[in-house]
Amino acid sequence: MADKKLVEEITSRDVDFTQWYTDVVRKAELMEYSSIKGFMIYKPNGYAIWENIQKELDARFKETGVQNVYMPMLIPESLLDKEKDHVEGFAPEVAWVTQGGLNELPERLCVRPTSETLFCDLYKNIVQSHRDLPKLYNQWCSVVRWEKTTRPFLRSSEFLWQEGHTVHATAEEAEERTIQMLNLYADFCENVLAIPMVKGRKTDKEKFAGAVATYTIEALMHDGKALQSGTSHNFGDGFAKAFGVQYTDKENKLTPVHQTSWGVSTRLIGALIMVHGDDSGLVLPPRIAPVQVTIVPIQQHKDGVLDQAYALRDTLKQAGFSVTVDDSDKRPGWKFAEEEMRGVPLRIEVGPKDIENGQCVLVRRDNREKVIAKIDEVVAKVGETLENEQNDMLARAKEHLNSHIYDAHNYEEFKEIVENKPGFIRGMWCGDVACENKIKEDTTATSRCMPFEQEKISDVCVCCGKPAKKLVFWGKAY
Amino acid sequence: MADKKLVEEITSRDVDFTQWYTDVVRKAELMEYSSIKGFMIYKPNGYAIWENIQKELDARFKETGVQNVYMPMLIPESLLDKEKDHVEGFAPEVAWVTQGGLNELPERLCVRPTSETLFCDLYKNIVQSHRDLPKLYNQWCSVVRWEKTTRPFLRSSEFLWQEGHTVHATAEEAEERTIQMLNLYADFCENVLAIPMVKGRKTDKEKFAGAVATYTIEALMHDGKALQSGTSHNFGDGFAKAFGVQYTDKENKLTPVHQTSWGVSTRLIGALIMVHGDDSGLVLPPRIAPVQVTIVPIQQHKDGVLDQAYALRDTLKQAGFSVTVDDSDKRPGWKFAEEEMRGVPLRIEVGPKDIENGQCVLVRRDNREKVIAKIDEVVAKVGETLENEQNDMLARAKEHLNSHIYDAHNYEEFKEIVENKPGFIRGMWCGDVACENKIKEDTTATSRCMPFEQEKISDVCVCCGKPAKKLVFWGKAY
Repeated sequence: MADKKLVEEITSRDVDFTQWYTDVVRKAELMEYSSIKGFMIYKPNGYAIWENIQKELDARFKETGVQNVYMPMLIPESLLDKEKDHVEGFAPEVAWVTQGGLNELPERLCVRPTSETLFCDLYKNIVQSHRDLPKLYNQWCSVVRWEKTTRPFLRSSEFLWQEGHTVHATAEEAEERTIQMLNLYADFCENVLAIPMVKGRKTDKEKFAGAVATYTIEALMHDGKALQSGTSHNFGDGFAKAFGVQYTDKENKLTPVHQTSWGVSTRLIGALIMVHGDDSGLVLPPRIAPVQVTIVPIQQHKDGVLDQAYALRDTLKQAGFSVTVDDSDKRPGWKFAEEEMRGVPLRIEVGPKDIENGQCVLVRRDNREKVIAKIDEVVAKVGETLENEQNDMLARAKEHLNSHIYDAHNYEEFKEIVENKPGFIRGMWCGDVACENKIKEDTTATSRCMPFEQEKISDVCVCCGKPAKKLVFWGKAY
Repeated sequence: MADKKLVEEITSRDVDFTQWYTDVVRKAELMEYSSIKGFMIYKPNGYAIWENIQKELDARFKETGVQNVYMPMLIPESLLDKEKDHVEGFAPEVAWVTQGGLNELPERLCVRPTSETLFCDLYKNIVQSHRDLPKLYNQWCSVVRWEKTTRPFLRSSEFLWQEGHTVHATAEEAEERTIQMLNLYADFCENVLAIPMVKGRKTDKEKFAGAVATYTIEALMHDGKALQSGTSHNFGDGFAKAFGVQYTDKENKLTPVHQTSWGVSTRLIGALIMVHGDDSGLVLPPRIAPVQVTIVPIQQHKDGVLDQAYALRDTLKQAGFSVTVDDSDKRPGWKFAEEEMRGVPLRIEVGPKDIENGQCVLVRRDNREKVIAKIDEVVAKVGETLENEQNDMLARAKEHLNSHIYDAHNYEEFKEIVENKPGFIRGMWCGDVACENKIKEDTTATSRCMPFEQEKISDVCVCCGKPAKKLVFWGKAY
């Protein structure tokens, strides 16, 4: 009964996706609202996922030569003001510190919404010669953007992220780094988070405030809405000129640097929930799950059962898996429900009968498939099962993505798809922001990206019918 | 010439310790001032040390059951106000956010100077029953305290730290956890940072705002001044009562929880510099050094030299060491000076002669001792040499600490020691804050701690001559 109740407290995913999402966040104990509007508390289960994301990404960054730094959390107004587009984009949504200690500050300071301006200020001081380039810095931190409506992991007034900021001697190098980091993100999402991405370039309307080009990875959630999951920006030399970041090149000529920035945030946890979750709760891919295996002893009061559970745990730990034993005095059914809610990829059941037979039972979280494993083969079996689960989860997510991409050849078709078929819509675009605005107004769908793999599915813009320039992925988005 | 100049740019440690410190921070590229007064930039060399400290400590925390979380960076004024001593201690030095987006805020929010109030607000909501206890949460973050005078790593308006916050059912458990974490810090400092600590309890005058008891680890810097390096606080049930954090115990009675908090910060990097550094720059203990070994090829243009350097690097990397090759076109002497400045524990020189003899030369950073190693034994030899270096550094630091502890039996002796012998002074204390105040006023020395290992070196207070209650370590401090 009790275990049934635990699951019943979640709204069904297909009845009310929004409520289901909120329920999972709460019942899996990932996040909690704080007493400050729009500010969230990352609880242990949620933060542990972020720690694993950090660990994986950080290692990948460092392999490409990136170094971590930490910059001040406050930015003087005069510094934020230096790049015109940038300040216009961010000033309306920053928090201002006006008092320090007991004194009014002579200049107000904003809590960083992003740190381009601070990095420019640093690079201006430490870059002099072409020998000082490139600089490939990154920081892990939190940023503040004053949001009106907020949702756990997807949009909040403070969120955790990483922001990489690099400066280069040439435009080519900067573009190369911009694309390299986008590909790194996409590869990480696909291979670790089991989330396939659509990669492409943002239209001018949707690009980052101050960037020459913004590239994006876009994922499709279970409900058919898109989630922008990471972005990589090429700034050209615009910031460099505004901030005076320049170097003497090999011909001894003073030249502005070329600059990039790129970031992903705790939004990725939102993506994990909305791509993989089901009516029993969270489903975590084995490669990112903080706990990969939970061992549930059956009839644990019986002689030898708990000992066997602990022995199994030790064997699996030694082999490098992240394992816990649920030896609490709750009933097994309750434990199953709880561990499913939290998305633990694999459950191992072991009871007196199993011990007699020298075996245990593995149950996959994603499809409930049961596998009997001999105790002396358990390491190999667990490894193989988790590997299969990881691959199957990616395959399902790919299948879901591919089966929810629709082509629209004219505006009637476009509107009909938006109305009835949640997913990405491929449609040609003339390049005019007016069409983007009209589409958004008529349908709430926005241009998600101009995919790298361009195709010509029609000669004319899906909105205005004028000659088309680009294939665009459109969609409703979080 | 060039290499000599690099080192000459550092002031000698014994000529002007303060200037030496600043020089090392700058020349080893650990930290940089930002354009906001009191806010620092952690550069790659400095941040990498912090990352290693985090990694080591975080693993040790988790072994004791601690879980990481992330709390909002802002605290509403009404929340900060709830505990009287706490707000009195912190309100004068916090930064206030008064505007969010384009609007004046209805209530001002302070940037966290520490997060006791936020954790209480969370625990109030998630702790109901004795079954919910203990909660052992920690967060890694930055905090802001508006400081008037600042110094890199030692005192700045924003700094990086971790803050652990735990709640327990009983006073005994809370006290046990407070001491456990203090011991964990001391053990880490001794075994990883090679810095021996004096452990003890703070006097009421020096304890944390709102705590029942504050315990501290105090290190002695090369110049004989003390550095408070970590603290662990027992709050009793004071915060719990102020915030209403209570649980129903096994007898179904509503009871306030007992609470602790504990933290260390980037100050530890200051300690590393000031305990181990010398006139050539930083000296890092092998267990915390981001780069443990730098290979410097000699006559690197000659056939096979660079290949041998890379082969050595690969061998050592495979064995788990952190290794770089300096294959830049600088002269070897310059490379030596640079790598010494950064405190790399071991240099390996390899040139044509060495290759002929199937060997390379290991040079320790701490004492310049040279060891010849056969190439086929290099892994064992490097391991052994780093181990010896780590142990010798700790032994030297212990020797320095022990030889700079002086006993004062009366106030004349006390003042004479403060004047002429930098170090810790052991002196008995009557327990009256008036004596602490007088000593501070007369000598600038403060009570550092009442050490756990109490002794009675005299019957009377070193200041007022009245009956003594406690042995206290006194000293000038950073």
